Amino acid sequence: MHDVVELTKALIAAESITPARGPVFDVLEAALVPLGFHVTRFVEGEAPDGPVENLLATRAGTGRHLAFAGHLDVVPPGEGWTAGAFAPEVRGDLLYGRGAVDMKGAVAAFAAAAARVPGATASLLITGDEEGPATFGTPRLIERMAERGVKPDLCLVGEPTSAHRLGDTIKIGRRGSVVIRIEVPGKQGHVAYPHLADNPIPRFLRALAAVDAIELDQGNAWFQPSNLEIIDVHTGNTASNVIPGAATARVSIRFNDLQRGPDLIDRVRAAVHMHAPEAVVEGRVFGDAFLTHPGQLSTLVADAIEARLGIRPELSTSGGTSDARFLVKLCPVVEFGLLNATMHKLDEAVAVADLHALADIYAGVLERVSV
Amino acid sequence: MHDVVELTKALIAAESITPARGPVFDVLEAALVPLGFHVTRFVEGEAPDGPVENLLATRAGTGRHLAFAGHLDVVPPGEGWTAGAFAPEVRGDLLYGRGAVDMKGAVAAFAAAAARVPGATASLLITGDEEGPATFGTPRLIERMAERGVKPDLCLVGEPTSAHRLGDTIKIGRRGSVVIRIEVPGKQGHVAYPHLADNPIPRFLRALAAVDAIELDQGNAWFQPSNLEIIDVHTGNTASNVIPGAATARVSIRFNDLQRGPDLIDRVRAAVHMHAPEAVVEGRVFGDAFLTHPGQLSTLVADAIEARLGIRPELSTSGGTSDARFLVKLCPVVEFGLLNATMHKLDEAVAVADLHALADIYAGVLERVSV
Repeated sequence: MHDVVELTKALIAAESITPARGPVFDVLEAALVPLGFHVTRFVEGEAPDGPVENLLATRAGTGRHLAFAGHLDVVPPGEGWTAGAFAPEVRGDLLYGRGAVDMKGAVAAFAAAAARVPGATASLLITGDEEGPATFGTPRLIERMAERGVKPDLCLVGEPTSAHRLGDTIKIGRRGSVVIRIEVPGKQGHVAYPHLADNPIPRFLRALAAVDAIELDQGNAWFQPSNLEIIDVHTGNTASNVIPGAATARVSIRFNDLQRGPDLIDRVRAAVHMHAPEAVVEGRVFGDAFLTHPGQLSTLVADAIEARLGIRPELSTSGGTSDARFLVKLCPVVEFGLLNATMHKLDEAVAVADLHALADIYAGVLERVSV
Repeated sequence: MHDVVELTKALIAAESITPARGPVFDVLEAALVPLGFHVTRFVEGEAPDGPVENLLATRAGTGRHLAFAGHLDVVPPGEGWTAGAFAPEVRGDLLYGRGAVDMKGAVAAFAAAAARVPGATASLLITGDEEGPATFGTPRLIERMAERGVKPDLCLVGEPTSAHRLGDTIKIGRRGSVVIRIEVPGKQGHVAYPHLADNPIPRFLRALAAVDAIELDQGNAWFQPSNLEIIDVHTGNTASNVIPGAATARVSIRFNDLQRGPDLIDRVRAAVHMHAPEAVVEGRVFGDAFLTHPGQLSTLVADAIEARLGIRPELSTSGGTSDARFLVKLCPVVEFGLLNATMHKLDEAVAVADLHALADIYAGVLERVSV
């Protein structure tokens, strides 16, 4: 089954809410084996984040080794679909179903492309946990590749990067993400006896004002400015006559490649400690920023898009995070896939014409890599 | 039963958590009727704040009419008492039981005093809801007094005002209390796309800093400075990738007689609106400040204390609110009662010697008023 539409439908029909394993991987394995791929599947991890299945498919051929990375898990469908979320159906020009654009359609398109360029060296790195915590997803897959000596030269992530029409955007980097928790302690007490209490809120406000005043950067040629948002303030005090014993805040920073996550935590801590030296400031880096400098790989993908669609894609680094943050440790990475307008929504759908075009473009990339 | 200790024990044994009614009032009525008091009882209000019982006892005699105000409801005992909270017991010098100091002991002391000064004009204004919302408590009792033409000349509230030893403090006023809620609206969104959202927190911080900077007053001869505390900040946002749609804060102000509750709400609103014009600022006044200017009444109570204990009490306006805030509409009010160290706590207890001394002092007040 190497028709992109039929394979997409078969993948959608195999319900696979995160963490995914089993049938949906059976469908993909059955499609890849006849194309000369050696398929290995791993079930990884324990509850609550696992077990999750990951699939590594490799095929030796000519030219450079292109790895296609993607996922077969999907977000929950929610209620209110016109037809069944896992009963794929073409109505008019569109194929409906959960995962149609994010990203079973792209996985199917790459399989279809691999069928049409049989001599290309290629692999597929497919996880069942991209939409979840990813603890046992792509990071584990990368460990398994290292154990087997699988080393791609280039990596193409098939996430839905197109904004208004297919081919208008490819991503050559992603911002990093860090979340920082600030707790300013005080001493709880009765509001009528403030001298017996220590209200943390006045210095909490000054500390947060200092955090809010932090100037990060103006961005650069490829990234928008890093951005800091205070996303929560909280005391937990519900009484009207009590001075709270602590005040907490959370800060989220999406940052470009001029910053590093641990440094940002230090800067926020320093700003807080100017006004509240006793505050506890702890951060978690969910991914550092990365950039695959525009060059051979992005040019090659852009050429394949232009050859098929007649438009030159924008090279973007905007938006949220993706598994590309893990893959950059292996080789240069770019991301290109379907329109993202309906991803994670009710009645997620892909244009049938876009599925065919995407398969053509992925084939174009494989041709350009394999020569 | 006009022995102060026995009457206190009988009142404690009649469990009466707010809202109180029934047996505990039966005990008091049985003590007062033999002393010449005309007793009227009212059951007022509906759930959840009621029904609650209030008692009005009046006795005609000589001199000015002194009203003694108090309550027979108690706060819940909590767990961990050495003996039963409603099984009064003298151990060593102390009588233990919920309500021993707040304020069944003082009610019993006044009854004992009235027995010893049989010719004095006196009344008892006793509510079953002082520890609760008071909706159907003292305010209703005041209405019933007006209907019956009961007009005291002086009012003595028997709340536990003594701080370190019996007689060290009487209260001649109380601060007012207002609680103000501030909500700064914004627009919720994904933290990776801040231009599509409107984070309310930066202007929320500026608004609260302006509120925190409000200078109220320096106090005066009888009151400490008014005090403003920001007691809560809250967004309700638990996600790490979401910019919250609103931020709320609550402010509590305890204020002296240089301020008025509604004016304070207006000042806070003006400070908030400088930085967040769209914010919603709403306040509730729980009581305005009042002062019974030091003079005849406080001197008379202080004289009775000094005659019995040899110390001159401090005239104070500190601490929380009491039902005196309602009674000041009737006549001059002072508050004097037992030590407040164990009120609302486990193993609430009163010194037996203090009960006797308090009855003596209340009798001294009645003697001074009735001449």
